[in-house]
Amino acid sequence: MDPVDTDNLVIVDALQFSNWDRELFEELRAGDLAAVHVTISYWEDARATLSHIGRWNRLFREHGDLIVPCRRGADILEAKRQGKTAIILGAQNCSPIDDELALVEVMNDLGLKIMQLTYNNQSLIGAGCYEAEDAGISRFGREAIREMNRVGMIVDLSHSAERTSLEAIELSERPVAITHANPASFHPALRNKSDRLLEALAESGGMLGFSIYPHHLKGGSDCTLGDFTAMVARTVDLMGIDRVGLGTDLCRKWGPGTLTWMRSGRWTFEPDYGEGSAERPSWPPQPSWFHTAASMPNIVTGLHAEGFSGEDLAKIMGGNWLAFFTDGFEAKG
Amino acid sequence: MDPVDTDNLVIVDALQFSNWDRELFEELRAGDLAAVHVTISYWEDARATLSHIGRWNRLFREHGDLIVPCRRGADILEAKRQGKTAIILGAQNCSPIDDELALVEVMNDLGLKIMQLTYNNQSLIGAGCYEAEDAGISRFGREAIREMNRVGMIVDLSHSAERTSLEAIELSERPVAITHANPASFHPALRNKSDRLLEALAESGGMLGFSIYPHHLKGGSDCTLGDFTAMVARTVDLMGIDRVGLGTDLCRKWGPGTLTWMRSGRWTFEPDYGEGSAERPSWPPQPSWFHTAASMPNIVTGLHAEGFSGEDLAKIMGGNWLAFFTDGFEAKG
Repeated sequence: MDPVDTDNLVIVDALQFSNWDRELFEELRAGDLAAVHVTISYWEDARATLSHIGRWNRLFREHGDLIVPCRRGADILEAKRQGKTAIILGAQNCSPIDDELALVEVMNDLGLKIMQLTYNNQSLIGAGCYEAEDAGISRFGREAIREMNRVGMIVDLSHSAERTSLEAIELSERPVAITHANPASFHPALRNKSDRLLEALAESGGMLGFSIYPHHLKGGSDCTLGDFTAMVARTVDLMGIDRVGLGTDLCRKWGPGTLTWMRSGRWTFEPDYGEGSAERPSWPPQPSWFHTAASMPNIVTGLHAEGFSGEDLAKIMGGNWLAFFTDGFEAKG
Repeated sequence: MDPVDTDNLVIVDALQFSNWDRELFEELRAGDLAAVHVTISYWEDARATLSHIGRWNRLFREHGDLIVPCRRGADILEAKRQGKTAIILGAQNCSPIDDELALVEVMNDLGLKIMQLTYNNQSLIGAGCYEAEDAGISRFGREAIREMNRVGMIVDLSHSAERTSLEAIELSERPVAITHANPASFHPALRNKSDRLLEALAESGGMLGFSIYPHHLKGGSDCTLGDFTAMVARTVDLMGIDRVGLGTDLCRKWGPGTLTWMRSGRWTFEPDYGEGSAERPSWPPQPSWFHTAASMPNIVTGLHAEGFSGEDLAKIMGGNWLAFFTDGFEAKG
């Protein structure tokens, strides 16, 4: 039984990376998602990112009955009203701006509204979460954060190291996001975040999106819905009810080659297993309660069982992201 | 004495290429230009064009009291109302889209609203006016023209060869432009156009912008204002009063290195003198009656003396371009 009418929820997923086709867009609609943040680049530079944007322009034309581009918060509400899903383009690395400050605005103008500062490794801006050393935000990084603040491109720290993340929160004049990660206290993965960092994020008005990627979950693919929602409850105690949402990190329809690209890019000749291992190099199975975007009502049910209802549940399911994006996507100055 | 009140004219120059700074924007205002089409790329590929667009984003911010970006015809009228000049970004070659059809829309979304199919040489789309052979529009060219038609990016044939130009006019479902050239019957330069081509252009609803670049003028730098306006009158007889405007090809504040880039790009190790010669390789002096954009009232005076007045004069000075851009910049389908 679904205890909550999802018609009254604005459901937002702050991270999915899939090999998008019509079936997957139909899954978004089946899950009643008003908006989803999709990854278009991991290691791709400016030129390669243009091709991805070109591909999304075609997807928007060909599937305009299911999806619309999202440039501002109002696009999410309008998509909800029309029974469509607003697609927010984002990058998991700063590679789309190469080494050129002016490309922040250029990419923002093309609809790239969220950008991670680093992806696992050292970038031109800061350190990723798998680096042994973390020297914080670089000279270019300070400029890039300021420019992202100005144009309304949201800083995402999901794959950044601790010092880099704390400095970014401090340097950014606008709240930043960790679109997809969990507290390290729930599961001690390198990609999950310390309470100290999550508190600093919340204090600055930033947002955390809870991940359902098995490597971020206690018990991995066997993590129960109850384990997940209990973590949500504990994190709400830490960060406050207004500072959390979903960022499921759902990956659909990719083969192992894509995982190799995500993990190893062009920066190594050896296989890098990232959050996997040599024994289990491939995509981990999804938890039984979240196979596709169409499983989204299960999260609602779980949060309700955890004791969340009404306004609080609506905030976690997407209301907080809606408010955050509505402000964050606007240019300032 | 200025016989015409320029306040009632919407003055449009369909081609300038200058090393833009505040002084030059002030010259645009002194000439009361409502809009100017500026070149941002000659041989630059997609990536390099992004840097030029980034530079223009900064110019628009820093000189917002004098200039505004132009994406549609209404921007020209609004600029006129505000006492500013609307800047239309364009490329003199198809290099900004590399070999990728989807980049037509990407570049259009970034404000590149006019694109030449070729610049002097063979391009991926067609033949330039200095090629010995002209095989017409390529396979990619047919796709690119169709996509430009769809998104509202105007096809410009100023530096294209004859067959390529005739085929482009035939293939394009929307009127095309020759933004800056003169009739070859006036001055037989390779860059000037045959009557046959100009008639086909006019028949299809296209536009010719008259050039004041000395190499396109009878007598070169010594061409008189009367010679120029007599050519305008003869061309109106050929093409009709609605199909012509200005495209002065004014180039300001560049050194010889820029001319070398324009002429030789990266495609030759030898100097190519283009419209110049080994004896006179540098920028030719402007005619005495058109040194800068602030000289625009002289054209008004000359056209008036030639017998144009009222509605006809307003059409030539910019009304025709305004109508052409208003339709041409809109996406269709």
